[in-house]
Amino acid sequence: MPEPRDTRRRPARRPTINDVAAAAGVSRGTVSRVLNGGHDVSDSAQEAVERAMRKTGYVVNQHARSLVTQRSQSVAFILSEPQERLFEDPNFNVLLHSCTQALAKQDITLLLTLASSLEDRKRLGRYLTGGHVDGALLVSTHSGNPLIPELLARGLPVVACGKPLGFERQVAYVAADDRDGARQMVTYLRSTGRRRIATITGPLDTSGGVERLAGYREALADSAPELVAHGDYTRASGEAAMTQLLERAPDLDAVFVASDLMAAGALTALNRAGRRVPTDVAVGGFDDSQIATNTSPPLTTVRQPYPRIGAEMVRLLLSSIEGESPAAVIIPTELIARESA
Amino acid sequence: MPEPRDTRRRPARRPTINDVAAAAGVSRGTVSRVLNGGHDVSDSAQEAVERAMRKTGYVVNQHARSLVTQRSQSVAFILSEPQERLFEDPNFNVLLHSCTQALAKQDITLLLTLASSLEDRKRLGRYLTGGHVDGALLVSTHSGNPLIPELLARGLPVVACGKPLGFERQVAYVAADDRDGARQMVTYLRSTGRRRIATITGPLDTSGGVERLAGYREALADSAPELVAHGDYTRASGEAAMTQLLERAPDLDAVFVASDLMAAGALTALNRAGRRVPTDVAVGGFDDSQIATNTSPPLTTVRQPYPRIGAEMVRLLLSSIEGESPAAVIIPTELIARESA
Repeated sequence: MPEPRDTRRRPARRPTINDVAAAAGVSRGTVSRVLNGGHDVSDSAQEAVERAMRKTGYVVNQHARSLVTQRSQSVAFILSEPQERLFEDPNFNVLLHSCTQALAKQDITLLLTLASSLEDRKRLGRYLTGGHVDGALLVSTHSGNPLIPELLARGLPVVACGKPLGFERQVAYVAADDRDGARQMVTYLRSTGRRRIATITGPLDTSGGVERLAGYREALADSAPELVAHGDYTRASGEAAMTQLLERAPDLDAVFVASDLMAAGALTALNRAGRRVPTDVAVGGFDDSQIATNTSPPLTTVRQPYPRIGAEMVRLLLSSIEGESPAAVIIPTELIARESA
Repeated sequence: MPEPRDTRRRPARRPTINDVAAAAGVSRGTVSRVLNGGHDVSDSAQEAVERAMRKTGYVVNQHARSLVTQRSQSVAFILSEPQERLFEDPNFNVLLHSCTQALAKQDITLLLTLASSLEDRKRLGRYLTGGHVDGALLVSTHSGNPLIPELLARGLPVVACGKPLGFERQVAYVAADDRDGARQMVTYLRSTGRRRIATITGPLDTSGGVERLAGYREALADSAPELVAHGDYTRASGEAAMTQLLERAPDLDAVFVASDLMAAGALTALNRAGRRVPTDVAVGGFDDSQIATNTSPPLTTVRQPYPRIGAEMVRLLLSSIEGESPAAVIIPTELIARESA
């Protein structure tokens, strides 16, 4: 196979800032100011420098540049979950997509990192605080995650998806209105005549787990302890929790499940137990992920607007990188009625 | 909620290399040698320095360090595909897992990056050649990908999964023996009495697409053009290609599909056309991914040993980072007989 023409292991000489200045007809200092954000540079000089950079093929030396600007033009997307969860739960796909898109508009690279073990988190902490990224998007963070205090101590801008339990005042975050969404769903189930409404919660060291359970309790006059079972957002945990609920409370006539993926597992358990959905048992999910339309029957659920959550996370992170103090953004949720309830 | 004790926005003073030297009772130069790989350092000094680093909470300044060692202790895993492919095809999950594990043993962070558009690849090229990573693992690379010449020109160590078409001599790679695997499958189909054996190929700008088609052709005395249809490794493309084949050659009695995911799509099309598998049409896949055991009937397929491929990719990349010249590793494949053929 012939050697491609444009491939050389080492270019003869890499263009320097001096080459750019010469091609643009400006001083070295002007080029440097453009590289560092364009303060005190006229529009025409800015354009001339940008043209010259393209012409000479100049690439910023990020080592040198990072020492000056402390910017790498990259952001880490940190998933503190076992890798399997990334592939099992379609919410991550959607959130990752919206964050990638929003960052691309700012010409910022997204680096996806998995931090499932304590070892991973330590190693990652070193990388993240070593100047290789400008900030971090924290996804699916459980309370007690040692990354948060470490990143805070090092002053790295961080935005969490969901309320970062224990760090609400120090870490910016974007969350769906979990409590209100749960309330809407349970109120809806009551309005259709259901009286023994159970729930399968998310993990109680996450804000989604805590808040959706709180919303469920608020919407019921009285909730019986045998009607509450716990899952960890995986499909298997939804199936196990539903089996447990059916044993404990065979007369239940509805279940609010804190994620669509767990709800899909619950449908499997109900089907195996010979309960018809929604005739015998109404099932309400949470997320409105891709799963909700693929189950049989399709899920009545609560929509979390992930595309908007991702865009807001990126907006908050960029302003935090610019020095803004942390803020919280709560986005309303919406009930989506399909056939399961 | 009370403020956690160990969180301070800015630590009073960050421990320096001098603090570590003092705590370890060694010279600054010894600490520096430990940080740069431990050459010419006694075991006892090495241990004393490591202890002192933990005690003082010293974190290497990666900016300064990278300028000296040119190492960031991180590697990029670059997927040149639309994001959806990452989540659709379980092969990526397995490969990502094995690479992450192998790198973790060397205390190296894996950064997953998606480069689906030309824009993404340009941006990523800048980041990767800016000193933020020590090397890159290229996954699912189609010929004409501009990242390869760019990374080569900048001298970044790179290892590809599958033969990098057009760069076989310049880029190290690890590949399953695609051609032999295809040959084994078609020979097996013939041995069970099949005579009109069709194939659904992968994209012909990837080595898997090219080599598996070549293996199919080699194993058949004569192959008819109407028996060859093309897919792009997605499930939908397998379904469409199978539909096309059934129209063109209704008398076909077997099909070798170049990936399990496409084979799952082909099963859907066969089912819709009322063809029984394997009675009317035998179906052979490729990969032995998780999908192969989940289809109905389970797939007879060719096993690609992804855990080993990932481990070998990491081994080649680390030796390339140490200055070794590129090598190719071809790993044998194995026929796994289940019920579809």
